[in-house]
Amino acid sequence: MEKGEFGLIEWIRGQFRVPDGVLGIGDDCAVIPQHDGQETLVTTDMLVEGTHFLLEDIDPYSLGWKSAAVNLSDIAGMGGKPVGTFLSVALPKTLDDSFLEDFFRGYKDISDRAGCPLLGGDTTASPDRLCINVTVLGNCAAGRSRKRSAAKPGDLVCVTGPLGDSGAGLKVILDKVERFEEETILRERHYRPVPRIDEGMKLAETPGVNAMMDISDGIGSDLRHILEESGTGARVDVRSLPLSAELRAVCARRGWDPVALALEGGEDYELLFTCRPGTAVPVSHTVIGEILAAPGLHWEGAERDFIGFHHF
Amino acid sequence: MEKGEFGLIEWIRGQFRVPDGVLGIGDDCAVIPQHDGQETLVTTDMLVEGTHFLLEDIDPYSLGWKSAAVNLSDIAGMGGKPVGTFLSVALPKTLDDSFLEDFFRGYKDISDRAGCPLLGGDTTASPDRLCINVTVLGNCAAGRSRKRSAAKPGDLVCVTGPLGDSGAGLKVILDKVERFEEETILRERHYRPVPRIDEGMKLAETPGVNAMMDISDGIGSDLRHILEESGTGARVDVRSLPLSAELRAVCARRGWDPVALALEGGEDYELLFTCRPGTAVPVSHTVIGEILAAPGLHWEGAERDFIGFHHF
Repeated sequence: MEKGEFGLIEWIRGQFRVPDGVLGIGDDCAVIPQHDGQETLVTTDMLVEGTHFLLEDIDPYSLGWKSAAVNLSDIAGMGGKPVGTFLSVALPKTLDDSFLEDFFRGYKDISDRAGCPLLGGDTTASPDRLCINVTVLGNCAAGRSRKRSAAKPGDLVCVTGPLGDSGAGLKVILDKVERFEEETILRERHYRPVPRIDEGMKLAETPGVNAMMDISDGIGSDLRHILEESGTGARVDVRSLPLSAELRAVCARRGWDPVALALEGGEDYELLFTCRPGTAVPVSHTVIGEILAAPGLHWEGAERDFIGFHHF
Repeated sequence: MEKGEFGLIEWIRGQFRVPDGVLGIGDDCAVIPQHDGQETLVTTDMLVEGTHFLLEDIDPYSLGWKSAAVNLSDIAGMGGKPVGTFLSVALPKTLDDSFLEDFFRGYKDISDRAGCPLLGGDTTASPDRLCINVTVLGNCAAGRSRKRSAAKPGDLVCVTGPLGDSGAGLKVILDKVERFEEETILRERHYRPVPRIDEGMKLAETPGVNAMMDISDGIGSDLRHILEESGTGARVDVRSLPLSAELRAVCARRGWDPVALALEGGEDYELLFTCRPGTAVPVSHTVIGEILAAPGLHWEGAERDFIGFHHF
């Protein structure tokens, strides 16, 4: 058994038989059919102090916001409507009441924006580090949720918004120097991503939209999941990647590579989807490449390969 | 804001508006109605190394078993049928592959026994401590799930099985001395509880069964939740508590108080329920008391008050 995150997940996946009609491990969400023409989507994510965040680098409001947002984004990545969230927190005694109030205020603000209440959870003590786990349930009409495995050769590869802002924002935060408005904007994008829930729901209702997922690790990694699950390859023209004016400005000033940040930075929480050419795509998006029949991921206009961001 | 576990939960509960028909924070599970005459039940629990367990005191197989079992028990406590589990683990690098294999073997064995597959999760790195979060989804016919809030004055108070074995097993483990077969049996009951899923489902189909929950903190604490949510009181005759032969033997030998262990030991994962006198109860059970109209919990035959077990 191989203990890297993806090796471990594959091993676990092999251990459990999943009932017919149920989609288990391996996509943004599990999909459980109901009897009423609906499907239940479920996603869960754990955030550990010291692995995913440092308390000195993120304020409690943003941490609460982000804990909910990254999971709501997995529901968006399948095209679902979020129904409720479940929050477990292990709290070190060093965190005071104002930390918790700010954390829950951030959690609530993005939950309200997504129209998705907190319905349950668990609070417990931690000997030292803050640990957060969020589970989100969503709904989708049966057969409408978009999987990673549905890309077809000839599909266009598309993204819903600018890439790299969050990765650059993280670098700004870690540098602990912030002098320009663009830097502040990128930091905010890292702290308080807005999951593309409406866009995901519209895309799931659009014939011709095939594979979809949210972008959490950077498309250098995430697009590979679509290719593996679909048994296809792709070419991506890195010159067509949507880059924000703020990213361009900060990268120019600091000598950073915006393309590397766009492909490997991670945590953009935009949607990555494929669709047939000629699809009337109902949301703002950019075409960045094409699905190919032959395996392999080809970067056009790039000087090297890109692999994406890993927490493990 | 008061930061004890129950004070914090009440504060959070006040922050989020829950849609009509949905049961949010405050019971064993949240209950979300579907459109097909079914309800979805959801429960989640976090287990943190150093708070809930020490790796020197529990083997990985039992830890995997117990992580799933305690959450399956919350579905049982509402009378639901478990449909799928979702497991997040934050893994310190010090844990080797054989630890993980044993952990998942235990998790799988109780999951198979409960007929409930692992459908998703998250694996990530932890800087030091192992942290585990399990979410379980269950199903129940609409209106059938049993809540804590449904106890009525005159109801009998019942439990499905012996109390105190798990608490005594924990004391045996912490003592690190084990000489008799009864001690081994109690230790096993602490390590590998069997959630009362079939019993819970049968009780949920029985008219006259009113309030129900699983016993995780000891009935000294758990029964109080039923009383608070139902606006009632109760009397419990501690002389009628079901105590196993093993518990009696070990307590006699070691000078422990079996009644204190039965009421405060926690982690028995039996079911606590109330029913109208004369109900044809379809599962093995013991009547231990009666629900009263006036608030307050009265222990008959006891020399002191009992409050139950808290992790917080």
